Amino acid sequence: MSAKVAIVMGSQSDWDTMRCAVEVLDELDVPTDVRIVSAHRTPDRMAEFARTAEENGFHVIIAGAGGAAHLPGMIAAQTHVPVLGVPVKSRALNGQDSLLSIVQMPAGVPVGTLAIGEAGATNAGLLAAAILANGDADLATRLKDWRAAQTARVAERPE
Amino acid sequence: MSAKVAIVMGSQSDWDTMRCAVEVLDELDVPTDVRIVSAHRTPDRMAEFARTAEENGFHVIIAGAGGAAHLPGMIAAQTHVPVLGVPVKSRALNGQDSLLSIVQMPAGVPVGTLAIGEAGATNAGLLAAAILANGDADLATRLKDWRAAQTARVAERPE
Amino acid sequence: MSAKVAIVMGSQSDWDTMRCAVEVLDELDVPTDVRIVSAHRTPDRMAEFARTAEENGFHVIIAGAGGAAHLPGMIAAQTHVPVLGVPVKSRALNGQDSLLSIVQMPAGVPVGTLAIGEAGATNAGLLAAAILANGDADLATRLKDWRAAQTARVAERPE
Amino acid sequence: MSAKVAIVMGSQSDWDTMRCAVEVLDELDVPTDVRIVSAHRTPDRMAEFARTAEENGFHVIIAGAGGAAHLPGMIAAQTHVPVLGVPVKSRALNGQDSLLSIVQMPAGVPVGTLAIGEAGATNAGLLAAAILANGDADLATRLKDWRAAQTARVAERPE
Amino acid sequence: MSAKVAIVMGSQSDWDTMRCAVEVLDELDVPTDVRIVSAHRTPDRMAEFARTAEENGFHVIIAGAGGAAHLPGMIAAQTHVPVLGVPVKSRALNGQDSLLSIVQMPAGVPVGTLAIGEAGATNAGLLAAAILANGDADLATRLKDWRAAQTARVAERPE
Amino acid sequence: MSAKVAIVMGSQSDWDTMRCAVEVLDELDVPTDVRIVSAHRTPDRMAEFARTAEENGFHVIIAGAGGAAHLPGMIAAQTHVPVLGVPVKSRALNGQDSLLSIVQMPAGVPVGTLAIGEAGATNAGLLAAAILANGDADLATRLKDWRAAQTARVAERPE
Amino acid sequence: MSAKVAIVMGSQSDWDTMRCAVEVLDELDVPTDVRIVSAHRTPDRMAEFARTAEENGFHVIIAGAGGAAHLPGMIAAQTHVPVLGVPVKSRALNGQDSLLSIVQMPAGVPVGTLAIGEAGATNAGLLAAAILANGDADLATRLKDWRAAQTARVAERPE
Amino acid sequence: MSAKVAIVMGSQSDWDTMRCAVEVLDELDVPTDVRIVSAHRTPDRMAEFARTAEENGFHVIIAGAGGAAHLPGMIAAQTHVPVLGVPVKSRALNGQDSLLSIVQMPAGVPVGTLAIGEAGATNAGLLAAAILANGDADLATRLKDWRAAQTARVAERPE
Repeated sequence: MSAKVAIVMGSQSDWDTMRCAVEVLDELDVPTDVRIVSAHRTPDRMAEFARTAEENGFHVIIAGAGGAAHLPGMIAAQTHVPVLGVPVKSRALNGQDSLLSIVQMPAGVPVGTLAIGEAGATNAGLLAAAILANGDADLATRLKDWRAAQTARVAERPE
Repeated sequence: MSAKVAIVMGSQSDWDTMRCAVEVLDELDVPTDVRIVSAHRTPDRMAEFARTAEENGFHVIIAGAGGAAHLPGMIAAQTHVPVLGVPVKSRALNGQDSLLSIVQMPAGVPVGTLAIGEAGATNAGLLAAAILANGDADLATRLKDWRAAQTARVAERPE
Repeated sequence: MSAKVAIVMGSQSDWDTMRCAVEVLDELDVPTDVRIVSAHRTPDRMAEFARTAEENGFHVIIAGAGGAAHLPGMIAAQTHVPVLGVPVKSRALNGQDSLLSIVQMPAGVPVGTLAIGEAGATNAGLLAAAILANGDADLATRLKDWRAAQTARVAERPE
Repeated sequence: MSAKVAIVMGSQSDWDTMRCAVEVLDELDVPTDVRIVSAHRTPDRMAEFARTAEENGFHVIIAGAGGAAHLPGMIAAQTHVPVLGVPVKSRALNGQDSLLSIVQMPAGVPVGTLAIGEAGATNAGLLAAAILANGDADLATRLKDWRAAQTARVAERPE
Repeated sequence: MSAKVAIVMGSQSDWDTMRCAVEVLDELDVPTDVRIVSAHRTPDRMAEFARTAEENGFHVIIAGAGGAAHLPGMIAAQTHVPVLGVPVKSRALNGQDSLLSIVQMPAGVPVGTLAIGEAGATNAGLLAAAILANGDADLATRLKDWRAAQTARVAERPE
Repeated sequence: MSAKVAIVMGSQSDWDTMRCAVEVLDELDVPTDVRIVSAHRTPDRMAEFARTAEENGFHVIIAGAGGAAHLPGMIAAQTHVPVLGVPVKSRALNGQDSLLSIVQMPAGVPVGTLAIGEAGATNAGLLAAAILANGDADLATRLKDWRAAQTARVAERPE
Repeated sequence: MSAKVAIVMGSQSDWDTMRCAVEVLDELDVPTDVRIVSAHRTPDRMAEFARTAEENGFHVIIAGAGGAAHLPGMIAAQTHVPVLGVPVKSRALNGQDSLLSIVQMPAGVPVGTLAIGEAGATNAGLLAAAILANGDADLATRLKDWRAAQTARVAERPE
Repeated sequence: MSAKVAIVMGSQSDWDTMRCAVEVLDELDVPTDVRIVSAHRTPDRMAEFARTAEENGFHVIIAGAGGAAHLPGMIAAQTHVPVLGVPVKSRALNGQDSLLSIVQMPAGVPVGTLAIGEAGATNAGLLAAAILANGDADLATRLKDWRAAQTARVAERPE
């Protein structure tokens, strides 16, 4: 099955964070297509990616970037495929700049933004799965099982 | 057609913000089900809403709240239907508390967060439509038309 | 004597912080009941805990959580037993998100919030003891002794 | 019945905020003793107030202040009666300074801090009532009724 | 003489701020070309503008935008003509989001950022003039006169 | 000669920062009296210190504290001897809480606040020396020499 | 008697804030010399002012400025007369930029910083008076009387 | 060829950051003149530098500083040569103070500000090159080649 979830990031250094999205989607048997697409260094590649996203069969795009993080919003500007944004932790400001650059989009071009860093990448994967599960009963079941297993792993008392 | 998008908010005072989500979905001919569900004042109603969301046919839930905004995250904790969060502007901190309370979810329970205030509510509506459009070619067309009309309205020069 | 103070936390990783609350209550001979209760991963367990808190004899609940910290507020929504909240230091934002998510509760559902991290956990323990001491003269004496000993330990000059 | 709850504030200008604490305690039939006590302008009065708080029969002290808000912490330094702090919204920084000055107390001297502004004052009153209700079954009933009425007032849908 | 300074902004609502750049360049007899170019709503127009900037004879581009302000950085990504960014004051966060979205560009794609709001727009105009003045002795003289007049207008004492 | 500069700090852990004030005053041959005085743990000692500061011959008081840093302001509330405040870097918030707790004093009770951490402590020493130098020509000369030496140490180029 | 306190500000628009410093010094019978001195628009005038401050008999300089507020620090760089800084509330960032630009001076060049806005200006006046009172017993008495009157004006209860 | 780009910094400790500006200009064959010029410790040297910048043939000045970073703005106040500012990461506040002290300049005296830290220094170099390239076709070609090489180095997929 061809991937319905694209995972893109602004640079190689974002991979340590963004691999969490891939990992949770792997656990849920959701294929992914992973690429480096830089809004600032490869704007043509970004435009090409965004504009062919629908015809390439993507139903969700997960985009991670740090600092003045323009990637999620600029992809969202060029496709109507749903875009989820992951603010990668930045060196000086711990991802506060990344978060505001991604979440504060103007009316008309939405980006669904997750938490700063690895938790956000994992959750972008889970939210992408939940979106796909609307039309895929088997995935819905796997997602519910994943959530149930997570609940079961919570111990009663700390140790 | 029964509504696939639920729009919930923590209190009557959030309605001025959240009506923007309803309005854009109206423009796109997407039916909505709008309710007040308070995490803090009506926790039972919230749990009931979240746990029946799937069987009630919701494919996306938009939840808006302000301050220590727990509504989006607590709904997400009790359903695997995708949840989009809208931080409502708060009195003292202008929605910075709302934003962090919604977006900084731990790994395992995702909320796709939009911008603070009315722009965020409009974009939650648009993102919900984009999610539904994955399985609804007519809606996809309407969404693309809406986006094209938005582009066409941008003047060449300021006046 | 059964414990009048419950100490709950969102995950095992909060224990390093929250043990400070247990330790100071141990010093004051106040029994505690310590549990992991996650608002997001175990919402049913949380609701059950909160709703039986009064009948289980708890007079104070100390709840610690990090990030989009919903645990203290959601417990407070489901019991009138006093709830004290401890913001656990978060990875990206150093607990600023935890603090705002706990303290900025809307009118109607209070959480008495302490400082971020270990100092906050210790102080949650001390405040719980002070609350119990209203009806327990022996504990009041122990608490005053603890405070006096703390004063006595402050050296005259740095070394 | 003499008042078990003292409500103190740093200046007349805090009264617009702090009257919310009095009002909710009035609704719950909890008598209050309301005073202006300034940490900076009347430090002697503050010390006298704090040191006689126990013998004057106070079981909870609610202290509100703004800016470099030292009142709650300095009272807590001089009594073991539980202190609840309310950050009053400040002119330049909207109460962010008030909040941090109150909540970030060092280990050893706790202040249970509520939200910035009127919501925080109301909640300080409610938390004080909850503390007293531990030893007062009638108050516990009134508090539960108050909470139930609050829940009942939440409409199903916005208007 | 054709304009060497382009002034672009994300929407009509930015014009109240950005007109300050035009006004100061008018005072200095520097022609400007003013356009609305939205990164999010007109990404094609933006790419076309940026890629033809050099051949159109622009020596400096001033770009103003608010919120998740991607315009200055995305233009800079597609031309090597110097780009100056003006953070427009946003509704919820007073331009803190605009500032961080513009200034925190990654290494490789620079945007020279000015202050939030009207002062920043005026200064973008002045900095553009200073850049042009490197190769235009008459403009250098006018700029020095403008600065001298500004100094002369500072009164000795307040009134 | 008895010390005209008192240096006080809230706890032993502040000494690493506050020793910088002592060191620069040593270099300037200004005697100091160094003490631990905690606003929260030793409020009586603090009041005694502040109220006898004038009769003990202090012309300047340097007070350092962290977190909800009440020491400088509370001393200033109880003496008219000039008080300089040093925000000590705190664990969770890097001294932002310390800074706001010290600098945002209400009208009527001033604290002259220096930078967060060691630079602030050094500068508190230098400002104290400058205050004393108003009435001590020899110290004024030493201070000018210190400043001249500082200027002389700045290299022409980095290495 | 010639003025020992100079009060300088960066622009006419700072006067509404800085007049509070003049007013409180008037109440204390302390003469002042008030000037507009802009670090950015009149750097020569600033250097001249700072370098002649000692010979002109100033014992304290109060400097107010907003935004990237360089005036207090640049005066302090050019005189050893004690400098007190007042952060004037700025348009976009409410004086947070002013505060950090004034208080975060590097080791070697101190500025004693007061609160943002009018309270800070009043307190700069009071701190200047306290510095002068070290060598002026009459002023010390007036200052103590002023403080005592302030204490006496605090009502017992709010109205 | 004599250097058209001056690179100045407030202290030796800024060199680790500012060397990135030198390095990228070296790659582009743009000569630089590098100096330590402290606004606070060597104000005379700074004034001399700024006032002779034009006659010394500088077309761009890059100034880096940290904390209450006054160097870029004070140089800009004393020359009309374009000034680019680099906020150096500070110890306590991670460069947030440096950024605001540099970027929030009042109308009339512009500083084009880059990102906090090394990325900002690199980008200051690139922006300086872009400014010079307006009148130097060879440099324009080298700059375009540099940018093309940067684009070519972006891998398709993370590894």
